[in-house]
Amino acid sequence: MTMMLPSILTQVDELVQPEIRAALERIDERTRLVAGYQLGYWDATGAPTGRGGKGLRPALALLSARAAGQPVERGLPAAVAVELVHNFSLLHDDVIDGDLERRHRPTAWAAFGVGPAILAGDALLGLADEVLCAAPDVDVNRGLSTLHTAVRRLIAGQAADVEFENRADVTLDECLAMARDKTAALLACSATLGAVVCGAPPAVVDGLDRYGERLGLAFQLVDDLLGIWGEPAVTGKPVLSDLRARKKSVPVVRALGVDGPAATRLAELYASPGDLSAADLALAANLIEETGARDWTEKQADRLLTEALAELDQLGEVGSAAGADVPGVHADLVAIAHFMTGRDY
Amino acid sequence: MTMMLPSILTQVDELVQPEIRAALERIDERTRLVAGYQLGYWDATGAPTGRGGKGLRPALALLSARAAGQPVERGLPAAVAVELVHNFSLLHDDVIDGDLERRHRPTAWAAFGVGPAILAGDALLGLADEVLCAAPDVDVNRGLSTLHTAVRRLIAGQAADVEFENRADVTLDECLAMARDKTAALLACSATLGAVVCGAPPAVVDGLDRYGERLGLAFQLVDDLLGIWGEPAVTGKPVLSDLRARKKSVPVVRALGVDGPAATRLAELYASPGDLSAADLALAANLIEETGARDWTEKQADRLLTEALAELDQLGEVGSAAGADVPGVHADLVAIAHFMTGRDY
Repeated sequence: MTMMLPSILTQVDELVQPEIRAALERIDERTRLVAGYQLGYWDATGAPTGRGGKGLRPALALLSARAAGQPVERGLPAAVAVELVHNFSLLHDDVIDGDLERRHRPTAWAAFGVGPAILAGDALLGLADEVLCAAPDVDVNRGLSTLHTAVRRLIAGQAADVEFENRADVTLDECLAMARDKTAALLACSATLGAVVCGAPPAVVDGLDRYGERLGLAFQLVDDLLGIWGEPAVTGKPVLSDLRARKKSVPVVRALGVDGPAATRLAELYASPGDLSAADLALAANLIEETGARDWTEKQADRLLTEALAELDQLGEVGSAAGADVPGVHADLVAIAHFMTGRDY
Repeated sequence: MTMMLPSILTQVDELVQPEIRAALERIDERTRLVAGYQLGYWDATGAPTGRGGKGLRPALALLSARAAGQPVERGLPAAVAVELVHNFSLLHDDVIDGDLERRHRPTAWAAFGVGPAILAGDALLGLADEVLCAAPDVDVNRGLSTLHTAVRRLIAGQAADVEFENRADVTLDECLAMARDKTAALLACSATLGAVVCGAPPAVVDGLDRYGERLGLAFQLVDDLLGIWGEPAVTGKPVLSDLRARKKSVPVVRALGVDGPAATRLAELYASPGDLSAADLALAANLIEETGARDWTEKQADRLLTEALAELDQLGEVGSAAGADVPGVHADLVAIAHFMTGRDY
């Protein structure tokens, strides 16, 4: 199904993107060209191309400030910081995974080389902290602590992901822990950071954190499903790209753990030497479906979304007591959760 | 000539290395193995190997706290942070440059793969900020600002270095600016950060900064000379490694800019396709020497060292007025400057 864009994403375009562009001015010209390409602002020659990514993470950060009863603008440094960290991780992940395409374009390393892409990632990671530090009237120390914890988990998740590629015995629990670290950590950080820097009470921060963690894992599960059954025209990635790279994504690990001939055949395909043919890739996708792992993963994503929305209901009560603009924020947080987990495939 | 190890380096072993090991506990186990390997604490299996690097940057950070009239311990978070940033940059630079050996061992990416090495670098960069943020009784905001500026310059320098490999028209000024960013920025940061976080007056910080910048460029020039004429047994790198990689280091760019047959022949060698033979490499080194660029670079390094030491004399007067333990600090800062620029070659 196709979802309407939540209105908060318009505010990301208007408020956050200009701040990110301004922050880029602080880094050297060579690295800025690569960073702005990654962010979607220009092509590899520097010619303007667009307004940047959808901005799901900055949208969550803006909403988290509002959930703390603060004007949306107070979440701005948090919104910029999480989008910079997100793009740092994409820059490095694409190098690490050797991925050639993202958002229908060559990845940054494919366009500029490995060195410039690594350095652009480094620059954005440093810039995220700088933006938070420079923000007036926010709790910098709490904000940095929240952001640093997310970065550490993000790195841990990616490190696990890399290690899994060389292991045949990855358990479903390990795989889910990896997905939580790799994806849910930064989304939970996004959904809390605006509130954290505004000095929101623990009940609000904790509720947003649980919402973000559950939504984040649901989002990753949907991404895993798209990595196998997604339309390249929609995902911006080559068809069956996760299977081609023999990724140990959640549906794959779930399928490998189910007793039966389909799982055995899938394990053989994953263990076979050399590139998988188009026929092998299609077979692998069918085998995963045959084990019930596609259906299971979809159900898990649905369950996590329901849990995330239940956290918002709880939060509504806390927020009303604290005097926040609860109905408006609530509706936006619900809309963005549906948007993030309802991607076409 | 062989220099005596300045006594401050013993304090780095005793005070700083345990703090770095403690900081590593914060990152995930997979990434910690790579980070500790890079830092020289263990081999690729995790078996203990030693006490870590020489610690020039942390030594400068400790001394900078003392130059501000503070006990050496107050410079500890700064010392940890600069050593973490230094190792972050080594991890990424070795990936970017494709270098296989460092300190007589395989580089981290050669031992663990590109992905784990990139992630370990990311983790150390994040950890540096975390350590500063968590430090009690220091000016965190000023400290982070100083550190972030150095990280940005370091990235700019490395980005320029990478770009220079594909350009035949690099000027000496561009090359020196690159060396200042790539190396002097973090050394100047090291020589000031301990003072900065202690809230030292601008006159002290600025003097240490000028000392660090000049010492840092001198250090890079010596490193450039070692990259061509250094003994592999001393440098821990393959013989003539910079020429093999066709690096546009300062002696090379100086040589290319001198009119005459030696420079023309050198330019031809650098522009020739394919790997340079052992004979070509030896010829290139001789050609650089023939242009006078080796001699010129040595003289520049000497001049910069003299200027760095003159800054210390000025600082001595400021420090005496402020009540710092000037003679002791002064002697250590002089000793470390000689140590850093007197490496065997």
